[in-house]
Amino acid sequence: MALLVMKFGGTSVADLDRIRNVAMHVKREVDAGNRCAVVVSAMAGQTNQLVEWTRGASSIHDAREYDAVLASGEQVTSGLLAITLQSLGITARSWLGWQIPIRTNNDHGIARIEAIEAGNLRERINDGEVAVIAGFQGIGPNGRITTLGRGGSDTSAVAIAAALGADCCDIYTDVDGVYTTDPRIVPKSQRIDKIAYEEMLEMASLGAKVLQTRSVEMAMVHRVSVRVRSSFDDPDSCPAVGSAGSAIVPGTLVCDEDDILEQRVVSGIAYAKDEAKITLLGVADKPGVAAKVFGPLADSNVNVDMIVQNVSADGTSTDMTFTVPAGDFERSRRVLESARDKIGYTDLRGALDIVKVSIIGVGMRSHAGVAAQMFSALADKGINIEAISTSEIKISVLIDAAYAELAVRTLHSLYGLDAE
Amino acid sequence: MALLVMKFGGTSVADLDRIRNVAMHVKREVDAGNRCAVVVSAMAGQTNQLVEWTRGASSIHDAREYDAVLASGEQVTSGLLAITLQSLGITARSWLGWQIPIRTNNDHGIARIEAIEAGNLRERINDGEVAVIAGFQGIGPNGRITTLGRGGSDTSAVAIAAALGADCCDIYTDVDGVYTTDPRIVPKSQRIDKIAYEEMLEMASLGAKVLQTRSVEMAMVHRVSVRVRSSFDDPDSCPAVGSAGSAIVPGTLVCDEDDILEQRVVSGIAYAKDEAKITLLGVADKPGVAAKVFGPLADSNVNVDMIVQNVSADGTSTDMTFTVPAGDFERSRRVLESARDKIGYTDLRGALDIVKVSIIGVGMRSHAGVAAQMFSALADKGINIEAISTSEIKISVLIDAAYAELAVRTLHSLYGLDAE
Repeated sequence: MALLVMKFGGTSVADLDRIRNVAMHVKREVDAGNRCAVVVSAMAGQTNQLVEWTRGASSIHDAREYDAVLASGEQVTSGLLAITLQSLGITARSWLGWQIPIRTNNDHGIARIEAIEAGNLRERINDGEVAVIAGFQGIGPNGRITTLGRGGSDTSAVAIAAALGADCCDIYTDVDGVYTTDPRIVPKSQRIDKIAYEEMLEMASLGAKVLQTRSVEMAMVHRVSVRVRSSFDDPDSCPAVGSAGSAIVPGTLVCDEDDILEQRVVSGIAYAKDEAKITLLGVADKPGVAAKVFGPLADSNVNVDMIVQNVSADGTSTDMTFTVPAGDFERSRRVLESARDKIGYTDLRGALDIVKVSIIGVGMRSHAGVAAQMFSALADKGINIEAISTSEIKISVLIDAAYAELAVRTLHSLYGLDAE
Repeated sequence: MALLVMKFGGTSVADLDRIRNVAMHVKREVDAGNRCAVVVSAMAGQTNQLVEWTRGASSIHDAREYDAVLASGEQVTSGLLAITLQSLGITARSWLGWQIPIRTNNDHGIARIEAIEAGNLRERINDGEVAVIAGFQGIGPNGRITTLGRGGSDTSAVAIAAALGADCCDIYTDVDGVYTTDPRIVPKSQRIDKIAYEEMLEMASLGAKVLQTRSVEMAMVHRVSVRVRSSFDDPDSCPAVGSAGSAIVPGTLVCDEDDILEQRVVSGIAYAKDEAKITLLGVADKPGVAAKVFGPLADSNVNVDMIVQNVSADGTSTDMTFTVPAGDFERSRRVLESARDKIGYTDLRGALDIVKVSIIGVGMRSHAGVAAQMFSALADKGINIEAISTSEIKISVLIDAAYAELAVRTLHSLYGLDAE
């Protein structure tokens, strides 16, 4: 018998049929003797409708009211799923954030969970009742409803799993796991059975939009095993979690790297298309220039990613290249143009036709030459690297968008990730 | 300066435009220096959508989950109105039932308000903040969300007015007040300026669907002045409540009869078409028969209204006629047919083509001959009275539905209610 947290996102509860399907997944686990807490998002489309209404009511809206309006979406699905479970003969009740309570800080719209007082919840679950919990929401210090930001239901699920000491947190989504890379680009990509938290963090923040970054961070801190699996699998043909061993449960387990016996050097290839490149030409090559460039961007909440500065040929001026999110491109350009006199540059060039390709793997730590291998493989294909950034378990390169697929396929083969 | 409760129903908050219109009504009162608590229903159509979902999830649904789902509708409108008020420069916040809290009993779906702990709410209102309160909802003894049943937002508004000691509870609806009778039948009907609680109760329960019966009962018990007025009036051209005197505020004031200086004998004519008549022929004329007839109906939750039993000609058997709600007609017939042997009757006849017409007025108490006048006026028009029931302030007759309009018009003229 295991204590499970099961989380279902918006597409998994999009209508009554999908909610019934979710109930069947829960029933399978209950029938196998597992204890379950189920975390649900709002029905797909509902949150957008509610956001549209709040924006329509006023362009500047009180974040506390925004949260009260938005949290209603999960309230609806938690009640509907509880009703559906009951109709299958399963004891179940819905829990709203304030009822548990899930205590958060006061940052409405992007609140952080501070504590979950799970005593009452745990007691009911131990008595065999399925807890259906409205995700994405909590209660702030002033007794107002808070929300955790987009994708916050993943975070709710992991936090609840940590608070309950659950054996696993199963995140049901519309894909059946985390892949070595995007299967649309590389048909030979494979589902990863186990991935380390650190790797998943890099995958998530680099564009593999399977799990919310914050939820992975939280899982890592609290050592919660998270499994990414599909709600579109037939509920009845999936094996239940538990005695038969979790190895046969389909999906990707995100866990501690020590729990992964056979660690590859590179676990996955990620790419991110929503980046933009900005180059400032003729910047003075002297101390303080970088601060003059990136200060105004930071003040405008633009998150600068990769930065490359060439050594100047003449010792007086140089070129500086960096990337920003594509959505912030125009704003960045305006900020830099209005600061032109202060910074001092001869020209500004921007490009949106670039892509960031990354290789990720905790195995890199103990393997030398991984980067050199990558650069030479790309060079062999005639792909020019415009910028490089590295961390302990990741190497990212910025290249022309036209070469994105070629680069991803090349690297996928290079590190032995292609399926047989 | 007055302390006002303003209540807006579903059609008054049906979309963002209507919500903005509501905000303008509130702004008018705030600008005049009044303190305001605003109670809102769900956007028109939303509650039906939510009900449909809960029914779709399971034909038998847990009333506690039903309440959690339904209460989300008012949560949305309270947040949206607070945002809209803020955009007009008005300090406002939304309050959910559990936040105030509005404590109810545990009868989910039809909960009764037991206490409103309004201390915090009152303090914020006294500080000049507009309280936007989600109607229709409260919190039960177990910390679960409860709802007050259809039309419960009227009850929320009156209960909050009582708890706050408000000067008036303005119920904004899609009509501009209570009329002497249905204007669609009698174009000469007039809006009533003031009506006693007792009269309004009879009007409401007899088919004038302006105010929820329970809210009128509660207003009577707590002596809350309730004004029925239209949210479709131009917000700017209405006078604000307060210094200029409430007499010029458009609408109908429901108040204590002592507060009505010029009391008419008959205040209004009501009619109800949704009744059905059942006649049992050849019932034994002996003690205990009535119990045998009405016992099984009561057990089936059928609410029997008018009862007429003729004196028997031969001393052994008689006919018994009574009315039930039209919606309960078929069920009543089945109950009585299955109890036929036990009751003992020779035949059962039923009819749906009947109407109940009533005259209402607290002035009847001190005026003799009102009933005689009514019966003779109907007789003059050739209208046959099939049953009669009376109370201190009401006389109802059951007649053939074909004569409904004629009867209402005749009585409206008879008691001097026609506009000049």
